[in-house]
Parts: sequence; structure tokens; C-alpha cells
Amino acid sequence: MRVTVEEAGGGSISMSPKAPQVTVRRPQIVILGAGFGGLAAAMGLRHANADVTVIDRRNYHLFQPLLYQVATAGLSPAQIAMPIRRILSRQFNVTVLMERVEGIDKESRIVQTANRRVAYDYLVVATGARHAYFGNDEWEETAPGLKTIADATEIRSRILSAFERAEAAEEEAERKRFLTFVVVGGGPTGVELAGAIAELARKVIIRDFRRIDPSSARVVLVEAGDIVLPAMPPELSEEARRHLEMLGVDVLLQEPVTRCDAQGVALAGGREIRSSCVLWAAGVMASKAAKWLDVPADRAGRVHVDGNLNPPGYSDIFVIGDTAAVTDKSGRQVPGVAPAAKQMGQHAARAILARLDGRAIGPFGYRDFGNLATIGRKAAVADFGRLRLSGFAAWLVWNIAHLWFLVGFRNRAVVFMDWALAYVRYDRSARLITDRHER
Amino acid sequence: MRVTVEEAGGGSISMSPKAPQVTVRRPQIVILGAGFGGLAAAMGLRHANADVTVIDRRNYHLFQPLLYQVATAGLSPAQIAMPIRRILSRQFNVTVLMERVEGIDKESRIVQTANRRVAYDYLVVATGARHAYFGNDEWEETAPGLKTIADATEIRSRILSAFERAEAAEEEAERKRFLTFVVVGGGPTGVELAGAIAELARKVIIRDFRRIDPSSARVVLVEAGDIVLPAMPPELSEEARRHLEMLGVDVLLQEPVTRCDAQGVALAGGREIRSSCVLWAAGVMASKAAKWLDVPADRAGRVHVDGNLNPPGYSDIFVIGDTAAVTDKSGRQVPGVAPAAKQMGQHAARAILARLDGRAIGPFGYRDFGNLATIGRKAAVADFGRLRLSGFAAWLVWNIAHLWFLVGFRNRAVVFMDWALAYVRYDRSARLITDRHER
Repeated sequence: MRVTVEEAGGGSISMSPKAPQVTVRRPQIVILGAGFGGLAAAMGLRHANADVTVIDRRNYHLFQPLLYQVATAGLSPAQIAMPIRRILSRQFNVTVLMERVEGIDKESRIVQTANRRVAYDYLVVATGARHAYFGNDEWEETAPGLKTIADATEIRSRILSAFERAEAAEEEAERKRFLTFVVVGGGPTGVELAGAIAELARKVIIRDFRRIDPSSARVVLVEAGDIVLPAMPPELSEEARRHLEMLGVDVLLQEPVTRCDAQGVALAGGREIRSSCVLWAAGVMASKAAKWLDVPADRAGRVHVDGNLNPPGYSDIFVIGDTAAVTDKSGRQVPGVAPAAKQMGQHAARAILARLDGRAIGPFGYRDFGNLATIGRKAAVADFGRLRLSGFAAWLVWNIAHLWFLVGFRNRAVVFMDWALAYVRYDRSARLITDRHER
Repeated sequence: MRVTVEEAGGGSISMSPKAPQVTVRRPQIVILGAGFGGLAAAMGLRHANADVTVIDRRNYHLFQPLLYQVATAGLSPAQIAMPIRRILSRQFNVTVLMERVEGIDKESRIVQTANRRVAYDYLVVATGARHAYFGNDEWEETAPGLKTIADATEIRSRILSAFERAEAAEEEAERKRFLTFVVVGGGPTGVELAGAIAELARKVIIRDFRRIDPSSARVVLVEAGDIVLPAMPPELSEEARRHLEMLGVDVLLQEPVTRCDAQGVALAGGREIRSSCVLWAAGVMASKAAKWLDVPADRAGRVHVDGNLNPPGYSDIFVIGDTAAVTDKSGRQVPGVAPAAKQMGQHAARAILARLDGRAIGPFGYRDFGNLATIGRKAAVADFGRLRLSGFAAWLVWNIAHLWFLVGFRNRAVVFMDWALAYVRYDRSARLITDRHER
């Protein structure tokens, strides 16, 4: 453990106003990103005799598994997001900075943000992933993806506006185009979005229009592969497809999208679907960490790390969560899910604590607690290894699991109340069309 | 009552899919705006044998008296807004259209929107007001006003970002500028904003920062007149000023703003206040109704109407709420508050119903239920004529009154729960910095 004595403010950026004039320079740990991984790392360092700096370009931690509910008007943004400062306010060795990372100098051990240079002794990179269009970036304008709160409120506005435009439309063809919703990608996000849109149309807003019948809306889930939820066991994938179709979702498999514009989508099989509302859930690309670090990455931009979550040759840098391509000690590729990110964050914290003590710890091992996806308000599929659930039982498990992991009591209680009320009244509380360009 | 028989769809725009092939042409009533006035008019027409069309450019009704709580992170947008369709979904003679009004042809009785022409027999104009800069429109960029949800989330982002920037600032002068908040205008909105920002800084986020002391933030309320809350009796205005100062707000009276830019504001007395966050609550201008109708208006753009709420010479047009300059039958100028707008909407509905029956009703009379303004979480001032309250009792009355008038049970329950939790925990639930330009 490197300890030097220097003038206050010399290299430390976490000086409290009450700090004495001369202080011991404590190890500097910098964490980039306050998602599940970064937050777990910060919390794992709560007893560290070190200065921890958490840098995120947003001021909130987002509970991403419920983001699709914001996009479909079931929850408000503040119900699934919490200020990072609030979460860490009582952890006094942590300073939170809202900054955008622009680069990393791994030789001088400096993180460069838009406004400052932050020195580190240990660095945890947990900057996540973003949806990707695989060479068709121009599709983003017509087919937004779902990763941030701004994405979610934009998608919510598009879905709700489509019904408004259908109500106002004079021509049958236009009305039909406004009432057709296309979700591209059959992973958990795509399945959840398609199910929630179908329910919104068929159950929630059914009495609110006069000139259109919202339940006549067509919801199409387009997947390039031959099943939905490919990470699930085949019988649960099949069960999920069946539930989607019961909700009235058209599931089109083995249909890669070949074109995507304001008119709708064209599929590899030659089919064209006219739609004013196309949503993208077909793939993700890791953050720019590999570029910042100048280290090898896989095709999805994820940094190759060793069993200690270090890029080869840099034992002071940990890359975790969706930004890392990790094979755990059992030789298995770790999936890009929230529990995995959390476990990697905890591992990074333990490894740093051990190094500060001059110890070493064993490699990262992923503990798989199971895999869950929900389809509408009454069904889900859940894979816990030997135990596999589908239907209402899985949906209950899904709800309890998600409430349990929501950060903060307040959010948990409010989300529970919203869900309970929504379940009883079949209402959606947050049906607001807000325009980000509007003053 | 004019009744003609014609082919379905001939002139009616509210055809339901289940309507018979031949229908009676019912009177067409068009309501512009679904604020307190427009909504009250629509609801007052629930038994009318007429087709009612409500046109609003937003899809939600906004409970504006609580908008300052969204701007200061106390409530989420969906807690004070509700889809217009949802509110009116069971009133089957109403069709809701989300359209922007572009003009009115009062001779042909046509409302022109961006996409269509809507014919009316009776027209209710309830398009409200917007904040105004009185010839200094360029101030809007640095000093946003508070009228819409987009305004509120923008202000929320600016307030919270100011603290973030202060935490990151390297220079004392910059830090001070980021920690100075200026609210221009001492009416109810200005008083509520200033009080809520002071509480946010001194009570809510007090433990969340490491390098700044949020309670050192300076909140300045600048008013051109010589009192705050000029609509209140002088002793309550004085009480409000005292409560603001107890919360740590600097109240500067008789100080018109002479300049407003990215550096801060300059005041008529020569003083300059450096601030990165200036908010505008200094005045409103009515919507463009007077221009659309080509009728006389007062300096604030409000249409001069007679005792029946009609612009002179147009008994088929009612102008109500903040869009109208109304002197009621007691000779008193009706204030621009929500209860007045509601009462005008109810009056317009009754007048239209009477005309449809060939009857006439007396002129509009405003019933004043009192005047309320809140200052932080424990104090308010309330004027009920002979009964005048201030402090905690007034605050309780304020809360009950606002909960009571919130549209819809669900919102009422959720807002109540939020307030109760916030009161106990001194937390603000919605502290999100969301960027409208962000993808």
C-alpha cells in the first residue's frame, strides 16, 4: 500500500471542506459508471481506506430491467431511477462527479473527462453498453432503442402519438400504418416491449378513442433468429412465443430487417410492414472502453479480460459488466445481465481491497441465480436451472425479484403501489406525450 | 336547436365505428384547450345532445398549481398530469383531438388546426397563457419560465445541474455562481419556487456532496413591485416575505431586472447577481386567441369579453380562463386562477345548454373561495376573506385543497403518499437530470 504525505489538495480530489491542512495521501480508486456494476464496486469499497471517485455522465442510477415499463407508460422515470449521490450519500469515502469520460491514459493512470483529469491507482470501468444498429446507424432516427430515460420517454411519446394520429387520420391506409407497431429483436427487451404494447392497445386505452378501435392495433415482433429469448431453454422460448401470440403479437422468426425508414421496415423474406412506430431491441454494443484503454475487444466492443477482470497486462484496471467479455472460472461466458454486473463489481472491490492489503484473491466466478423475462401483466418465463416456471407463477416471481432488487425503500413502495393499482384498474399512470424539442 | 339529417360522416367528425349509417346532425361544440376551463366546459356538457370536440396540442391535462413541485424534484410529471382522453373516456359525446390550433374563421365557424378544419356551432376558447418577457424574449434561453411539463423538467435539470457543476468547479468564484439561484417575480409561482429551492439546498441534498456545502447556496427572489404575493392582503404578503427569509431566501423588492444573460442578472438599482440558474416567474401573456379571433385584447393579450364571456358581437364564442379579461357581475376583475377558470368553463357549458334549449341565462358571477400560496414544506398563507391563515395551519389547508382538486383518485393517492414520505424523510423523489437533447 502506497502512502505518501503531502499538502492538502495536492493530488486528492475528494477533499472535504472539514479536512485538516495536512493529510495522508490515500489510494485513489476511480469507478467509471454507476450502473449495477459500478455501484456494486463502490459499495464493496465502503470500508476501504481509500478515496473512491464515481464518475457518471448522468446523475442517476437506472434500474434498467424496468425501463420498458417507462417506455410503455406503466411507470414514471423517477420510479426506476435514483440519484447516485443519494445512494452513496452516507458512504463518506466516495465522491460522485457528473462528468463525461473522454479518455484514459493507462500509463500515467489518468482519466480524462470533459472538464478535468482524475488520477487513479485503481480503475474500475463499468460504462455499460448501448443499443447498436450494426452498420445501419441511420436507422436510429426511425427505430429508437431503449437504454436511457430519454430513450424511454421518447419511445413512450412515439407509441402514444401513433394512437393520437390514428384517431385523427382521414385515410384508412394511414390509420393502419399508425396502428402498426414493429419491435425488432426477440430478446428480453423486445419480448417485454411487444407484450406491453399489445396490452396497452387491447386493455388499457380501449375506451379512450372514438374513431379508432385501439384493440385493432397490430404489434409485430421481428426476430432474425429462429426463436425468441434465445438465452432461455427451448421449451421456455416456445412458451414465451405462445404467450405473446395469446396477447395478439405477431411473432415473425428468421426475418432479418433489411431496411428501416419512416414508412416502416422491409424484411429479408421480401415482406414489407408499413408502420409509423418501429422500436429497436436487436443488439447492443459496449461503451468505448476498449478504445479508451487501447486493448483488444470482441465484435460487440467488449474488452477481453482475464479471470481477475483485468485486461491482460493491467492489474490496476478492472473492466466489468456489459463492457467486458468475461469467461468465468468454470469456463462459461458470463451473460450481460444485471446480476452478473453486480457480482463483477463486488469481485473488483474485493480484489482491490486484497491488493491494498498485499493479498491476492482467486479468479471471478459467476453465480447464476436464474433467468427471467415477462410477457404482459400475467405471464413470464423463469429458468432457475432445474426449476423452470412459466405463466402466472413466473410472473409473480418476476415481480418479487424486481421489487426486491430496486434500489431504495421509497422506490420499492411506490413501484409496488403503482403495480398493484395498475393490476386492479388496468390503467397506465404515465401516459404523457412530452416533446424533448418543446419549450 | 338546429337539427338536420344527413349522411353519416357528412359534417360530424365524432363518428363512432358503431354509429348507424344515417344519423341526426347534432350541434357541434368545439372546445380549445383542456386546462381547468376547457375541461370544466366539456364536463358541463356531459348531458348535452351535441357532439363535443376537445382540441389540445398536448395529450394531458396538467394540474398547474403543483408544477413547481416537478420543477424542484418533489413530484414526477405523471403525478400531476393525466391523459385528457382518460378523463373524458366515459363521456361518450366527447371526441378528443391532439392538434395545434392555427386559426379561427369566426364567420364560417371553422377552427383551423395544423391538419384539419373543424366546424362548430358553439366555440369555447380556453387556451390559457404562457409566461412572457415583455419585449425581452431573448431572456427565455437563460431564464426559462414554468408553464408546461417540458418547462418543469428543464428547470429541474438546471437546478440539479447547478449543484453538480458547483461540486466539480475548481474556482471559488465559479462555485459561487453555480450556487446562486435567482427567481424573478414575486407572485405565487416565484414564491413557491424560491421556497422549494431553498429547502432543497438546506434540507434535502445536504449530505450528498463532498466538496461543496449545499446549504451555502444563495436563493434570491427578485420582485419589481414593493411586496411579494400582491394579490394577498398586505399582512399575509408580509408574512410570506418573513417565511421566505426564515428559509434563507434573499427577497429583493422594487428591483426590476434590466439584463439577463448567461452570467446572471442586472437589477435597476445597479446591483448585479452572478448566477448560472435564473428562473422566470414575472408575468404571463395570454395565448393567441385574440389574434385568431381578431377581437380586442388587453395588454396581456387577454380577450375582452362581456358578462356572458362572449367577445362583443359573437354570442356563439366563449373565451374563458387566462385567455379572457373578465369583469364579473359584481364589477370585479376576475383573477387568473384555476378556480376562476373552472367556474367560467361551467358557466360557458350552462350558457350553451340554455341556448340549445332556447333559453338564456344571467351573466357570469365569480365565486371567490380564497387565495392560497405555499412557502416551503411547513408554511403557507391563505386568504378566505374574513379568515386569514398563515404558517402551518395554512400549509395544511393548502395541501388538503390541492389534493382535493387533483384530477383522479389514482393521482390523489400517489401524490399523497409522495408528500407523506417526503415529509417524513425530507427526501425528494424525482431528482433526475434528463436532457431533452440527449438520445
